[in-house]
Amino acid sequence: MKHIEWKDHKLYLLDQRLLPGRTVITENVTVEDVCDKIRTLAVRGAPAISITAAYGMVIAAESFRAGDFQSHMEENHRRLAATRPTAVNLFWALAEMKKVWSAADAAEAPALLLAKAREIEADDVRRCRRLSAHGAALLPAGARILTHCNAGALATGGYGTALGIIRRGCEEGKVAMVYADETRPLLQGARLTAYELMEDGVPVTLITDNMAAHMMKSGKIDLVITGADRIAANGDAANKIGTYGVAVLAAYHRVPFYITAPLSTFDLTIPTGSDIIIEERDGDEVRSLGGVFTAPKDVPVENPAFDVTPHELIKAIITEEGVIEGDFERGIRAQFEAAAKG
Amino acid sequence: MKHIEWKDHKLYLLDQRLLPGRTVITENVTVEDVCDKIRTLAVRGAPAISITAAYGMVIAAESFRAGDFQSHMEENHRRLAATRPTAVNLFWALAEMKKVWSAADAAEAPALLLAKAREIEADDVRRCRRLSAHGAALLPAGARILTHCNAGALATGGYGTALGIIRRGCEEGKVAMVYADETRPLLQGARLTAYELMEDGVPVTLITDNMAAHMMKSGKIDLVITGADRIAANGDAANKIGTYGVAVLAAYHRVPFYITAPLSTFDLTIPTGSDIIIEERDGDEVRSLGGVFTAPKDVPVENPAFDVTPHELIKAIITEEGVIEGDFERGIRAQFEAAAKG
Repeated sequence: MKHIEWKDHKLYLLDQRLLPGRTVITENVTVEDVCDKIRTLAVRGAPAISITAAYGMVIAAESFRAGDFQSHMEENHRRLAATRPTAVNLFWALAEMKKVWSAADAAEAPALLLAKAREIEADDVRRCRRLSAHGAALLPAGARILTHCNAGALATGGYGTALGIIRRGCEEGKVAMVYADETRPLLQGARLTAYELMEDGVPVTLITDNMAAHMMKSGKIDLVITGADRIAANGDAANKIGTYGVAVLAAYHRVPFYITAPLSTFDLTIPTGSDIIIEERDGDEVRSLGGVFTAPKDVPVENPAFDVTPHELIKAIITEEGVIEGDFERGIRAQFEAAAKG
Repeated sequence: MKHIEWKDHKLYLLDQRLLPGRTVITENVTVEDVCDKIRTLAVRGAPAISITAAYGMVIAAESFRAGDFQSHMEENHRRLAATRPTAVNLFWALAEMKKVWSAADAAEAPALLLAKAREIEADDVRRCRRLSAHGAALLPAGARILTHCNAGALATGGYGTALGIIRRGCEEGKVAMVYADETRPLLQGARLTAYELMEDGVPVTLITDNMAAHMMKSGKIDLVITGADRIAANGDAANKIGTYGVAVLAAYHRVPFYITAPLSTFDLTIPTGSDIIIEERDGDEVRSLGGVFTAPKDVPVENPAFDVTPHELIKAIITEEGVIEGDFERGIRAQFEAAAKG
């Protein structure tokens, strides 16, 4: 079972909100269906969102009936771009798709766009594997790794970024234990990371987010690896809420903190993390847990979906091009230049 | 409605596990009933546990039928002491009760013990009020305060320690906002602190534990106040899991971090926090909530109920005798000497 699958002009998406209790595959035939799945986090994870949005643009082209094709595509591009504001991979994938549809007519676009979406998807898995090899090389023997949220197969086209490195590290016999923060409010760590790693036979221990400090103090964590949703030109990284706190705790306990993401997660148009828009989500996500209200229904809440970790707290950023350490700004630019040269 | 109430030879206890959804008062007529309520966290909070255990010893004396009264009391003392290992107030209250029953016979003990239990309860409220006045004096105007877990009326004989300071600060017009960490796994912040403060009209915003760092970075927190379950002779303080992490984050963001507790929370027999026993609770508390599983049912977990904050991270400890700052060991000893002199 694939969590993102294009078949017979329909996009099949695993509803990740119901995992691990139930495995439900949704059938998506309109752009609004696809927007809804991204908006509600049925599909989540920066690379997975980008692949889903790419297929969304295939649906857009196939649904064209009459009028101006370019306006029609522009309108659907805008709708998909408006689903979530923080993960930059979404905008990157939509821009890649736009290069195709803006140079095509209504008749040829669907096939060309489908080929491009499939390429983006396959390319993501290749990048995850390359990035995982670079990251696994950094792991010490018997590594005990803390991760936050889910940067796994489900968050990408497959294999994963942070969990890709862990998978590869396991193949190399280097991983003793993975501690998974449950990651409130939506519990991606408890529901997805724990589930993915158990399925793959990787040793995993689930903890609540507020136990991470105690585990570090107890000497149980050798390093932290998380994914990212947007990385600024200077290396500041937005990721799931709670990541910044883990980075501060890691610095205090002298535990190396790594971020890993493909180059499509970088946004070189913004110099620092303070320019990253943080999505604020519905308060009921905080007031309830697993669908059950756990707080007064009318209590005021804040619910930022992401936070920004300044590059000073990051030991290294691991991409498909290699490991960036030290001067992040220069290292990031160098990787983009190398990638452009192919 | 009182959350701890002795009436007609029975101990009525509010079941805090069901708040805020349901208000259920349990009727407790045996020592085992009382042990069960403490063990399962139907009653929780270091001072509240101590008052409950004191009434438990009244039930023990009243249930004596035949044999050796002292052995009977010793046995019930042991059972109540075995319910939870970390909060020292429990052992303190049981020792206070022992002074009474060890010098009494079976006929006179019940009335004497009831008087002592009532005194411990009333005394707790007085201490909370004194401590709250000392703490409120430290609050700046327009204070935005983060608190963790529930150190409120429900955790004590009434009024509360950390929330007592906040209540008093509100009366003095000094509190702009209280941020309540939800406090996984058992959500005392979401269920109890949010509920208590809303009932009293105190401005409160609920956040998940992993949002605290982002809130501090955003400049929304002026200070942190939490309670404690056991404080060592040097000021190291055990409190609900997650407290230590908040203290590290506060230090990083230069936000003052305060601990508040009555002197009955101090354990001068242990020199440092490393001697404090940390209770490890059932893993299903992490895997689920209210019977709803939010993680794979067989995922390994760790579930320490407490962590220890070293005194270096604590700006001051606020007790009913005043504020301890600087040399904690000396300050704590001085307060005990002052209290002994009356």
